[in-house]
Amino acid sequence: MAFPVITLLTDFGIQDAYVAAMKGILLGICPKARLVDVTHMVAPQDIASGAYIVKTYWRFFPAGTVHLAVVDPGVGTDRAPLAVRAAGHTFVGPDNGLFSWVLKETPGWEARRLVDPSPRTRPVSATFHGRDVFAPAAARLAGGASFEAQGPLWNPLVAPWVEIRREPGLIQGEVIHLDGFGNAITNIREEALAEAAGGRTITIEAGSARIRTLTTTYGDGMEGEVLALIGSSGHLEISVNRGSAARRLGLLTGSPVTVRFIG
Amino acid sequence: MAFPVITLLTDFGIQDAYVAAMKGILLGICPKARLVDVTHMVAPQDIASGAYIVKTYWRFFPAGTVHLAVVDPGVGTDRAPLAVRAAGHTFVGPDNGLFSWVLKETPGWEARRLVDPSPRTRPVSATFHGRDVFAPAAARLAGGASFEAQGPLWNPLVAPWVEIRREPGLIQGEVIHLDGFGNAITNIREEALAEAAGGRTITIEAGSARIRTLTTTYGDGMEGEVLALIGSSGHLEISVNRGSAARRLGLLTGSPVTVRFIG
Amino acid sequence: MAFPVITLLTDFGIQDAYVAAMKGILLGICPKARLVDVTHMVAPQDIASGAYIVKTYWRFFPAGTVHLAVVDPGVGTDRAPLAVRAAGHTFVGPDNGLFSWVLKETPGWEARRLVDPSPRTRPVSATFHGRDVFAPAAARLAGGASFEAQGPLWNPLVAPWVEIRREPGLIQGEVIHLDGFGNAITNIREEALAEAAGGRTITIEAGSARIRTLTTTYGDGMEGEVLALIGSSGHLEISVNRGSAARRLGLLTGSPVTVRFIG
Repeated sequence: MAFPVITLLTDFGIQDAYVAAMKGILLGICPKARLVDVTHMVAPQDIASGAYIVKTYWRFFPAGTVHLAVVDPGVGTDRAPLAVRAAGHTFVGPDNGLFSWVLKETPGWEARRLVDPSPRTRPVSATFHGRDVFAPAAARLAGGASFEAQGPLWNPLVAPWVEIRREPGLIQGEVIHLDGFGNAITNIREEALAEAAGGRTITIEAGSARIRTLTTTYGDGMEGEVLALIGSSGHLEISVNRGSAARRLGLLTGSPVTVRFIG
Repeated sequence: MAFPVITLLTDFGIQDAYVAAMKGILLGICPKARLVDVTHMVAPQDIASGAYIVKTYWRFFPAGTVHLAVVDPGVGTDRAPLAVRAAGHTFVGPDNGLFSWVLKETPGWEARRLVDPSPRTRPVSATFHGRDVFAPAAARLAGGASFEAQGPLWNPLVAPWVEIRREPGLIQGEVIHLDGFGNAITNIREEALAEAAGGRTITIEAGSARIRTLTTTYGDGMEGEVLALIGSSGHLEISVNRGSAARRLGLLTGSPVTVRFIG
Repeated sequence: MAFPVITLLTDFGIQDAYVAAMKGILLGICPKARLVDVTHMVAPQDIASGAYIVKTYWRFFPAGTVHLAVVDPGVGTDRAPLAVRAAGHTFVGPDNGLFSWVLKETPGWEARRLVDPSPRTRPVSATFHGRDVFAPAAARLAGGASFEAQGPLWNPLVAPWVEIRREPGLIQGEVIHLDGFGNAITNIREEALAEAAGGRTITIEAGSARIRTLTTTYGDGMEGEVLALIGSSGHLEISVNRGSAARRLGLLTGSPVTVRFIG
């Protein structure tokens, strides 16, 4: 790409200069890079939520884009630094499940454990691999460095929450993301629901709520009513008409959501 | 422009990846584009507020800039998708009044109803025209596509709140934007005020407040005092010294503001 | 630089179009500039906090970068408009202490009082020098204009809070920044602490807290415990395990922090 694109997703917030430090490193190594902020408001250390957001945007960027994503509660431990190539896109970040949906949904991916290619001018901070490890790797890759040269082949972590549990008469899933409106997005995909339902009626249990029908838009039902629908990314989500499902039902990332099939 | 500029204004917030999806589409179609975020914190679905913000920034950008603005409560209805050319700038977004101030204040504009020029690879989502309709059009226009070729001539909506009501002895206006400090900006322009006043004394009524004088800065008066002044964009605004006029007086977009002339 | 980088730091917030107006001016004058937002969430008018953030990012950008920083409570008074060159970087903003750490920590800097080089097309607003004075200067400098030609040599303000007070048996410092997690960062540097301690035990006083040991990470101690540690920028900071030191101890920018040495 004449002007390679690097997207950035983190849980660093927008008050401090942590993201700026990463951008300085990126532009120092790859001056032609186009930097695109996705969000820096991922719930702190919430890998499942970050992974869901990664899933929702990467395909809309042109092939060749480098996606730098840092939600990294394990920084300083021995979790590997990771680069993944999938469908012509490159992903750089910690190997902690952040790319689980990409790996699960994109056949033919290849992953490398990042190895620093050269003595660095600055020491690697124990707590800021975003700046000291991932940004340099993303910038090298955006600048045309060989993917294969970034390190040995690696078998990355696919987090357990990309899978649902199927039992007779039910699907057991969980909340994987709370969006800005308080909608609780689950790991239960539309296809899984349709396949398991096979024409039976369903009941969805989330917190104290029992929801007996799938609606099609957030505005269905009465004000304050708890709704279940398939969102724009194809996942079952729990919503409250003009309200926050997260607050109303006390849902958090990881809260169980059960779908029961009757008849 | 060698590096065409595209500005983005939405009410999508900064927690999710909706804006990023639009940016991916923009860079896929127009790789040389410079993307400039204006704000994504427009009050949800508040067209008047978005229109006021559009008014305050577009003239500061170089001619040739494409301004993509999406505050779109009517998405999925039959409101038209719109492109406007005015004073060398191009505006793309829903035809719902979002460009009312541009249209009212910029003689010689031309508007087109957007028609998709080619079969698209992705289906148009019923709820995300920002990504599927407006971003592609903005990117085509930034990349040099003919404005005339985007669709037939169109008569766009100018919302009623760009006009004030003049009666003997008073001007009836309304709040069109609440800024980040809680100042309530009205649709009453400095010129209209001066013209109608003609040397008479004025009283301004907003919520429960009666304000008997125009001050010149936000710091005038005592702490907590309700003030009226002409803001940087030439509009009458209601302010509270070191406080929020919106909260103190319960003002919302659409709240009436009356100016009475006495003597 | 083929694509000069301009960073932006302000206290303008992200709801309105003040930052966008600056960006429009920047791109009008220097179309090839790369604009990088650092943060626009500096606590309003908090120069000390802005100065601390400037300190934490500028070195990570490539030499040649122009850093535009506007936290400007004195706009409209006679405080000078300033440009500083230090270590190959250029800083543009008000002469009110915002670049105090850069000046203190970077020998060989040179400063100029900005003088507008030409009759301008727009009048200078009394309240928006960010757009009307600093952005044009930053864009000219990014575009290659001579630093020396920007105005006469100038002796810029170094704010008093870059210095600590040393007395027998104690160091008297203060809080200079509250970060997004509520950590209270002080002006007491690691070296000053080590030098003064000389092997003696220390007690740190901040608000009502007496802290008797330096810990190494934010996670040390029990939940809710008040901690003192040396942060990533080498400054003493007061922190609460899984909590906000600012809220817990009522700390603000300017709050005193005392280190006592015993033995």
